[in-house]
Amino acid sequence: MASNSCGGGSDRQMAAQHRLSVIAGHLQRPSGSNTAILAAECKAQGSKPFVSSERRTVPRRRQEIMKWNGWGYSDSKFVYNKKGQAEFTGKRYKLSGMIIPGLKDWMENTFGATLQHKTTATPALNSTSVPPPALNEAFMEELKSTGVPFSADAEDRVFRAHGHCLHEIFALREGKIGRVPDMVVWPNCHNDVVKIVELACKHNVCLIPYGGGTSVSSALECPPEESRSIVSLDTSQMNRILWIDEKNLTAHVEAGIIGQDLENLLNESGYCTGHEPDSMEFSSLGGWVATRASGMKKNIYGNIEDLVIHIKMVTPQGVIEKSCQGPRMSTGPDIHHFIMGSEGTLGVITEVTMKIRPVPEYQKYGSVVFPNFEQGVACLREVARQRCAPASIRLMDNEQFKFGHALKPQVSSIFTSFLDGLKKFYITKFKGFDPNRLCVATLLFEGDREKVLQHEKQVYDIAAKFGGLAAGEDNGQRGYMLTFVIAYLRDLGMDYFVIGESFETSVPWDRVLDICRNVKARIVRECKDKGVQFPPLSTCRVTQTYDAGACVYFYFAFNYRGLGDPVHVYEQVEHAAREEILANGGSLSHHHGVGKLRKEWMRETVSSVGIGMLQSVKDYVDPNNIFGSRNLL
Amino acid sequence: MASNSCGGGSDRQMAAQHRLSVIAGHLQRPSGSNTAILAAECKAQGSKPFVSSERRTVPRRRQEIMKWNGWGYSDSKFVYNKKGQAEFTGKRYKLSGMIIPGLKDWMENTFGATLQHKTTATPALNSTSVPPPALNEAFMEELKSTGVPFSADAEDRVFRAHGHCLHEIFALREGKIGRVPDMVVWPNCHNDVVKIVELACKHNVCLIPYGGGTSVSSALECPPEESRSIVSLDTSQMNRILWIDEKNLTAHVEAGIIGQDLENLLNESGYCTGHEPDSMEFSSLGGWVATRASGMKKNIYGNIEDLVIHIKMVTPQGVIEKSCQGPRMSTGPDIHHFIMGSEGTLGVITEVTMKIRPVPEYQKYGSVVFPNFEQGVACLREVARQRCAPASIRLMDNEQFKFGHALKPQVSSIFTSFLDGLKKFYITKFKGFDPNRLCVATLLFEGDREKVLQHEKQVYDIAAKFGGLAAGEDNGQRGYMLTFVIAYLRDLGMDYFVIGESFETSVPWDRVLDICRNVKARIVRECKDKGVQFPPLSTCRVTQTYDAGACVYFYFAFNYRGLGDPVHVYEQVEHAAREEILANGGSLSHHHGVGKLRKEWMRETVSSVGIGMLQSVKDYVDPNNIFGSRNLL
Repeated sequence: MASNSCGGGSDRQMAAQHRLSVIAGHLQRPSGSNTAILAAECKAQGSKPFVSSERRTVPRRRQEIMKWNGWGYSDSKFVYNKKGQAEFTGKRYKLSGMIIPGLKDWMENTFGATLQHKTTATPALNSTSVPPPALNEAFMEELKSTGVPFSADAEDRVFRAHGHCLHEIFALREGKIGRVPDMVVWPNCHNDVVKIVELACKHNVCLIPYGGGTSVSSALECPPEESRSIVSLDTSQMNRILWIDEKNLTAHVEAGIIGQDLENLLNESGYCTGHEPDSMEFSSLGGWVATRASGMKKNIYGNIEDLVIHIKMVTPQGVIEKSCQGPRMSTGPDIHHFIMGSEGTLGVITEVTMKIRPVPEYQKYGSVVFPNFEQGVACLREVARQRCAPASIRLMDNEQFKFGHALKPQVSSIFTSFLDGLKKFYITKFKGFDPNRLCVATLLFEGDREKVLQHEKQVYDIAAKFGGLAAGEDNGQRGYMLTFVIAYLRDLGMDYFVIGESFETSVPWDRVLDICRNVKARIVRECKDKGVQFPPLSTCRVTQTYDAGACVYFYFAFNYRGLGDPVHVYEQVEHAAREEILANGGSLSHHHGVGKLRKEWMRETVSSVGIGMLQSVKDYVDPNNIFGSRNLL
Repeated sequence: MASNSCGGGSDRQMAAQHRLSVIAGHLQRPSGSNTAILAAECKAQGSKPFVSSERRTVPRRRQEIMKWNGWGYSDSKFVYNKKGQAEFTGKRYKLSGMIIPGLKDWMENTFGATLQHKTTATPALNSTSVPPPALNEAFMEELKSTGVPFSADAEDRVFRAHGHCLHEIFALREGKIGRVPDMVVWPNCHNDVVKIVELACKHNVCLIPYGGGTSVSSALECPPEESRSIVSLDTSQMNRILWIDEKNLTAHVEAGIIGQDLENLLNESGYCTGHEPDSMEFSSLGGWVATRASGMKKNIYGNIEDLVIHIKMVTPQGVIEKSCQGPRMSTGPDIHHFIMGSEGTLGVITEVTMKIRPVPEYQKYGSVVFPNFEQGVACLREVARQRCAPASIRLMDNEQFKFGHALKPQVSSIFTSFLDGLKKFYITKFKGFDPNRLCVATLLFEGDREKVLQHEKQVYDIAAKFGGLAAGEDNGQRGYMLTFVIAYLRDLGMDYFVIGESFETSVPWDRVLDICRNVKARIVRECKDKGVQFPPLSTCRVTQTYDAGACVYFYFAFNYRGLGDPVHVYEQVEHAAREEILANGGSLSHHHGVGKLRKEWMRETVSSVGIGMLQSVKDYVDPNNIFGSRNLL
């Protein structure tokens, strides 16, 4: 490491040496022995140097297993088979290989989308449509001598040119390629990142860190005006658990690790982080830290800011990190909070110490049906007030309940129509519930078996006060299982002229009902105004509860047949929806972040002085805008 | 408000107006009615505009009820009466008016401090020893027209020239007055603060915000090199609860409110914040936010960063605040964390929205005796691992156990000597425990009665696994009661040649025992080296537990008879103790903060890049160093 960019490093070494000599004063050593203290001797007993498993989700050439123009694994997708039935292909998911009998009718009824009206996506990337890379020769020369793997291959570059906003995927399906990175590099460790950042600063190359590539805020889009060479810094090969500390229940992990790998590896030792964002199959630790991620089971494990103990980030000014792994400090403003939420604009997060917990003894799903959404929200609010929320509790509105039904796989040989199945469900279980008003909450409890059963009783008792009826574990479990396949559904939609997106907010309790009603209504109105031919799907779900409010998640999709510029219509409606959210007291984002998509509202969100503070940090840390994604500000 | 310093204000008004018009679109209004929407109509139902009680702890002229050269209320102090017994004067505390029979012997045995050797503190401030105020005439002229109360009275200025570090109080007792503020101002509300900050910027006056005055980091000391007029901005009269929102369980409060007033006022409505720092009788909400305060019952209510929903701060660049009261957001780096920990260097915090909770139904104290400190720490670690910590759990070492005994008030007519009482305690209860090794944990449970009793059983069962024996509610309750009188004890010590201080750290679990042993031993060694005649009191307590570590609190005091420069000796020993803490993996501070006292370690604590970030924020927000306390950086 050249000393000019890592001055902090040698300060830190001197401080560490000084500390070792202070502690050495206490150790009784037999005369004649070597008095030098090795760092390893100071390591906490109970630390396990972790041998990383070979198996990792994300290979360097991601396109070998993942779609280049859609969500997730190439082998997994929704299709209509020859009989006109919806199927989910592949072998990776519980739903894989199954027929979903209700989906076709649901799509037809909800969107007016029929099998006759099919779009064609560009099946494979046409390399000639990709601009040749604008390589910075001096940078490349020095990079070669570092030994860090790199590529200027068109497929590698295009793969990392986007996240998963609708407009990004739509453009790829049309074969439209905008500004893409000129090169991809794959650092293997923190020191590789230090070298790359140093070289980028030296040769004025634009760096865009790339973790899981799951951004839905246009954060990964390459700014079209960027004239310097853009290098995508892919962290996926920097993915080891460096150590597990069983005494302190922490793990020190390289930031390129993907969520599912992190949990699987920790599980091997009987631990977990419990951080399970819906994107966890593909998203990375560094990405979570950079975007202030939230996980499904945050009620037990906390959000990312509750999980991290120590962060290391490489910036143009050098490495930033605290010297201590204490659980909570008062040492001025918390610099971790300058890093969390910086969305790739300040540097590359390389290593993180996270809290871990023993894998819970017992897990139990559940579900509750409420007569209407208002009662459901009131129940969730009371559960939050009593501070007895399960690991996860989510309340979907009536449309999502119906949607969930449509996704039920066929498990018997008798073909049941969507409506028949629904009717049957009502008659046998929920006499008196209005099928067009009822909604469902899905629950997940985990922990010691005895405590879980007690907890479960407490929650169901509260639900009963709001007219809620227990609807069984299966419905709960299925709700959570669907979480990971929902994202694949958009690709199916786009095959049949349906486009859509999810977006989210956090809002105080007393605004939850208003925001749900007003935003959904606004979406419907705007679609009508903009000439959308069929009424849109406009639906919401309360996905997280807090003391002072909740997270609300919206799905919005419509059939764009007959529209000249469907993406433009979509963007206008989404924009209006966000205006409506803000007007109703909701936040700009609960966990997706700002990226470029929501920059325009940053000033009113944090005030001019807040913008000034963020800008001043950026100007200091990265005066030449090496980390030039142009997110946030 | 002049627009140049509060540009954000009119942006915010425009944004709010826009939002009201968006929401207005949904309201059905009978024709002919006024379509203007009043802000009040948009207020959440269930908000109670709060009528502030007249009674507040802190009057403008604090010296009317508080000591000018010691801790707390003037009417409350430890003294030795004519019979040579220790008494606690006044009527405010449970201990008030009581004899403490064991204290004299304990002081004699611990410090070699006898009644014969008494110091004399300067009884009253000699105004002639106070430099005349260096008033900025132009500032004063404009200030007068604002109507904000002010004073250049020597007593008012001296009162606000210090916190409660040893060297500050020692100097006052010797009648030594250093640099003091030139004026004191008492804003009544946020708008007053805006005016004051504006004028200070215009006339280049140094502002030092003053909340409770309880800083123990030299944060309130006026920099001697400061040549501009220094104005102490006393927030104590800006102390109302502006509203309580029962739907969202939040309260919007002016930042000058003192802890005990906040809780008492909220209690009147059946609520509390539950934030109970040991300083809560005198410390302020603004001070807590500025220093990242921690409260005794953080296990239930959280630390300050968990309690705040919204913060408003007035800076030279204008007002900084978020636009939303959502419970948790991803909108870039969290600007609240630029404010929390800024220790008065960026502006004045004026209003805070905090979470509130219903006052718990039931409270129960408890205590556990352990055979030794190691077992006690192991128990606390296990309680943390199981995530079943009570509202409060604290483990004191053997010396503090003995100290606690010495503070037992006389409740019967039979005079029991300190040692007799101790022996009696052992023989009747804890046969087999070594009196020189045993230690005590004090516990506080609160919540629903049924849950509390269940919880209590769980914790005592864990304690039993580590050789712990329940020692009754009384011992627990007394331990917590003593919390608020301990600070008065230092003044008694200083009357008899004993000086001392507390300091704290946070540390990972696997370092707790090492840090306790090594720091206490280091203190003893350093005192010996520096010529302290009698062995010092060097004792510690684990006061908070977290998933990944604990907060450890040290008391250190010694008899300084025979030393030429006792404060200098004290400072050298404290410095060495902090070096020892850092060398053993402890943090620079868990909750006291950095101030000026611990600035020298900031670079190694947050790294050079971290310092650069903090400096860049300071340079942007306050380029002329109006908030010139020189804390942190």
